[in-house]
This record gives sequence, structure tokens and C-alpha cells, in this order.
Amino acid sequence: MTTALPPQSALGLHRVIDPPGVLPQAAWRLDPNPAIARDEVRVRVDRLNLDAASYRQIRETYAGDPDKIRAAVGEIVATRGKMQNPVTGSGGMLTGTVEEVGPDSPLGLRPGQRIATLVSLTLTPLAISDGLLRWDGQSEQVPCEGHAILFARSIAAVLPDDLPVPLSLAVMDVCGAPALTRRVVSPGSVVLVIGAAGKSGSLSAAVARRAGAARVIGVVPTEAEAALLRGTGGLVDEIVIADARDPVNLAAKVAAAGGPADVTVVCVDVAGCEGGAILSTAQGGTVIFFSMATSFSGAALGAEGMAADVTMLVGNGYVPGHAELALDLLRGTPSLRALFERRVLEGERR
Amino acid sequence: MTTALPPQSALGLHRVIDPPGVLPQAAWRLDPNPAIARDEVRVRVDRLNLDAASYRQIRETYAGDPDKIRAAVGEIVATRGKMQNPVTGSGGMLTGTVEEVGPDSPLGLRPGQRIATLVSLTLTPLAISDGLLRWDGQSEQVPCEGHAILFARSIAAVLPDDLPVPLSLAVMDVCGAPALTRRVVSPGSVVLVIGAAGKSGSLSAAVARRAGAARVIGVVPTEAEAALLRGTGGLVDEIVIADARDPVNLAAKVAAAGGPADVTVVCVDVAGCEGGAILSTAQGGTVIFFSMATSFSGAALGAEGMAADVTMLVGNGYVPGHAELALDLLRGTPSLRALFERRVLEGERR
Repeated sequence: MTTALPPQSALGLHRVIDPPGVLPQAAWRLDPNPAIARDEVRVRVDRLNLDAASYRQIRETYAGDPDKIRAAVGEIVATRGKMQNPVTGSGGMLTGTVEEVGPDSPLGLRPGQRIATLVSLTLTPLAISDGLLRWDGQSEQVPCEGHAILFARSIAAVLPDDLPVPLSLAVMDVCGAPALTRRVVSPGSVVLVIGAAGKSGSLSAAVARRAGAARVIGVVPTEAEAALLRGTGGLVDEIVIADARDPVNLAAKVAAAGGPADVTVVCVDVAGCEGGAILSTAQGGTVIFFSMATSFSGAALGAEGMAADVTMLVGNGYVPGHAELALDLLRGTPSLRALFERRVLEGERR
Repeated sequence: MTTALPPQSALGLHRVIDPPGVLPQAAWRLDPNPAIARDEVRVRVDRLNLDAASYRQIRETYAGDPDKIRAAVGEIVATRGKMQNPVTGSGGMLTGTVEEVGPDSPLGLRPGQRIATLVSLTLTPLAISDGLLRWDGQSEQVPCEGHAILFARSIAAVLPDDLPVPLSLAVMDVCGAPALTRRVVSPGSVVLVIGAAGKSGSLSAAVARRAGAARVIGVVPTEAEAALLRGTGGLVDEIVIADARDPVNLAAKVAAAGGPADVTVVCVDVAGCEGGAILSTAQGGTVIFFSMATSFSGAALGAEGMAADVTMLVGNGYVPGHAELALDLLRGTPSLRALFERRVLEGERR
């Protein structure tokens, strides 16, 4: 394979077939041609990790029939040149080995490295060559053979040698949360993490501590989750058991635990947590919403309705160096690692 | 009327009848008892300004029949103790005259002042006493008699003497946008305003200029809007006519006009503008989303998918001093005032 093509759009616009001129994520069909441009990378794929919502939709549509599930996923990839479920709109990520690196690629990858993509499959050109025969269709983990293309602005992380792959993937899946939290927390702050026993929540709590937070308060929904968090020994200073959808009750309990917070990090994928997060945050404070269940209007109108002068951030999943930071946190925080290992065993999704 | 009740919750929790313990906005029913607590204010209401979506839903349900429309709104207020359309969930705002101020109210109001509420009717205890007889049911402007209650954290602004009331209301309706924009713009920045000929957009452009922006680029959808903006003479430095829903095209045109932007302000209530805003913003820049049509996941996943290291802010409608700032901008910028007067004449909604 030669790098015959000229350097192309860092965002992959040149791979968009239909409709022309849109971004790859918005496209119906991408061109997965294995010949790479000077700024692209080709990856030999070994596994897809389908988005949970996408896999569930396909499994339910075909009543769990493995042949039909395989055929459906194969058909999507063959038709669209990417794995983007047309119903849910979602994708997932992949792991594989770097096969060829264009001379102008800025990603810093080398052939032979084992990587995971941190951009969505919904914008990654992909071709499958083995008919998905090794996949039993019974989970969103899809062992397969094929290739994928990374653009100059695609994000990928080298899988570290010192950690099991499922553990690294679990960390990378949520690594934007601790990276952005680190930017916002200043020494001496009171930090509130809603969903502190989850993956993004525990990483955010750990990084808040490292950033010099004076007090870290973790909110969990149940006594079982509280026990899990307690078992980490020191990831948070105070544990609050509360329904985060009940603003008044949450804010009262947070106040009793040393709040309100200077920085609140919302990491629980449950709708209706905007009001509680805002009400638990001090005037002049910041709320970072990482939950994909966040309602934009719920946050905007909620703050206005409570005359809450808080800065509200949309949790951007990309911060430079985010994967390295998160893996480093895991390595340096044994209690965090233990919690993650348990989550991975449980097969918990973010 | 005496201030017989003890000071109560700044957020009005004590006025919530059903279900107990929720915030007033989430309540089915509030108590509009005219006896105020020590930190409350009672307002003699003269006009409701129904949310456009709410009014449209009611009008369509009753096929424009004035008696039925009046009865429907009257019934909602009588049943719920506030004006919150059960279908749309939205409210609106009101104007009136301050009647009684509790001794512990922090709002700084005095009896006799004419005010507008800047918090939603969805959380404002309200009673109507004239059966809405003066309302023809043909617009969302509802002249009426009754009273409303302001809590310690309700936001209200005194209507200035030197400006027509409709003009002041139009400014106050969107005053959060310039206030937050001023906080974010630093001298020398390139500022992009998407929807620059609208109310929140033109105010944001004006405040960006005042904050020392080196260049203000305004995006509008049509030549007609461009002409309107051009007529303001200097509100923006560059006008870009583009469909903000097309990220690639928008970013290219913004680049040609002196972009990418350090700060992008999204003021156009059209869905699907997240990608274009992000792509038109420089790495390390900030996007402020004021549009209620913003998709949280569209913003979060869009930035991640483009490896865009941008700070994304949820446009909080409340910033201390926001109404005064916006009115002051209008007074000091004749071109802005001319544009607003035209918008008010057109009856344009944000």
C-alpha cells in the first residue's frame, strides 16, 4: 500500500461520499478506501466496541438472533462505510494495530502500536473483511477483521502495556471528565461529584483531590454505591446518599456535608439532575455537565429560575492529553484502580 | 395587608402546595396567597407576556376562539396558582407595580415602582382578579388585573422612564446574553456572533465591541438580515451570510472573514448549529450557547468528534446586573437602538 493521495482535510471531508460537503459524522456514507492520504493513518481492526444503546436496539429488533444481528451490523458497515446505527445515530469505538502512517500525520503513531480510537465510530471510515464470523452477537464486543482510517484530527490512544486492555478502555471511555475537571478545580475548592462511584465520577474525584481540593463530596444514589465508594478509602471526604433529581433534598444534604460546592461535576447518566447540581453550587461557582442525559434548556432555565450566578460547562470529551492523565490517575491511585476493576468486571457502562 | 408571615425560603419552597418539596417551577400548584413573608414582594399585575410557544398551543387548541382562550388561561392560573402551560411547560413574564415589600426582601424594590419580572411565570405565584376581560385573546400580550409574589431570589427589573416599555421588555428578554459575553470576551479577541441581527445577537455584538474585541464577525442567514445589520453601521466589522447548520461552509466563510473566532456566541434559535459554531472557533477558544435549540449531546459529541479543544458554556440567563448592562448598551449605541425598535415593531420573538 502506498500513500498515493495528497494530504486531505484534517476532519476527513474528502472521505465523505453522501451527502457531499457535510462532516463525516453527519454523512450517510463514507469512503473506507484503504489507500491513505499523507495525513491519515490506517489501522488493522481487531475489535469493535459498539455503543450500548446501538447494540441494544439491534438486538431487540432481531430478538437476539445471532445471524440476523451479525448480518445487520455487517450490512450497516458495508452500506455506510462506517458503523453508525441509523436508528440510534450512535457508534462506539474500536481497537486495532497501526498498519500504515502517512508522513504528515500529526497523531504521533507508529506501525505496530496497539491503539484504541477515542473518536466515535460514527465518523471513522471502516471496512469489515471477515463477515463478523467470530462474533456471537451476544454482546457489544465485536471481534472482527478489517481496517479503519484515522484523520489528522481523529483521536487515538496507544494501549499501555502495563494495564489490561479492558481496564484501559474503561478509563479512556470517560477520560474527558477528569481532564476538564482538573482545568476547573483550583486549590482549596469544595468539589461536589454527582455519581462519584461511577467511572467518570471516581476519576473526577481523584483528579479534584490531586488539584488541591479542600473537600471532595461524593453523591451516590444508594447505600450499596456508598459502600463501594467507602471501600476506596479516601477518594472522597464526604459521602452523600441522595436522589440527584430532587434539588431541594440534594442541596440540603450537600450543605450538611460541607457544601455548597465551588465546582460541581455531574457524572450520572440520569435525566433531571440539572436543578440539583445548580442548587448545590455556590454563587460564582461552576457546574460541569458530563452526563449525556443533561438537558440544555433544563440547565439554562434552571439557573435563571433560581437566580443562580453559576458558570455551566458542556463536558467536552476532548481535552489534549486526557487519556494519559486518566491512565496516570489510575496507576497512582490504588483505590481508584480497585473500583475500576470491579466496574469492568461488572461490565458497567458509563 | 401586613407582613404576617415569618421569612421563608428564598426560592419560594414554602409556596409549593403540590407536590410538596419540589422547586416552584417543578410544582403542579403554588399558593398565591397575597400575604407576603418578610423576604417577599407583592406586585399588582397589569400585563402578562405569555411565552410564544405557550400562546400558540392554546390558540391552536381552541381554534382562535377568544372566549375559550381566555377561559383556558384563566383556568390554568386558577388551578395552578401560576401561569404554566401544562402542555408546553412554559410560562412568560409579567409587568406590574410594586405593592408591598417585605422588610427582609433583598430585591431593592420600593412600592410604586413599575417593574418587569425576569424570572419565568412558571415559578411565580399569581392570581387573576378580572377574569381576563380586557384581553382579546388575539396575542400573547394579556392585559389583566391581579397580583403576583416575588421571592428573595426572584429577579425583577425596574422599567426605566426614558425608554418605551415594549423596547425595555425586548431588551430585558435577552439581557443574559450580553452580560455573559462581556465576561468572556477579552481585549483583542476575534468574536463571532451567529444570529447577529437578532436581539440577543446584536446586544452581544455591541458588548463585544465595548469589551475591546479586535474584530466582530456577524453571521446572518439571508441578504435581508445582512442589510439590516449593515444599516446599523459598525455593530460588526464583517458580515457573513451563511447557513449556520452547515459547519464546513460556515467555518470556511468565517475563516475568510478573519476567523476562526476566539469567542463564538450562538444566538440563533435553530437546531443543528453546534458543529458550525465549534468548527468556526479556534483551538483554546470559547463557545457560548444562548440558543434554546442547542442540543447538549450535539455540542459535547461534536467537539469530541472534531478533537476541538474549546470551552463550551451553557448560556445562563442570569448574570447579576444583566438588565442594567443591556439597557445601558441600548442607550449608548444608537444603531443598536434603531435595530431593536425595528424588531419590536415587527413583533419578533427571540
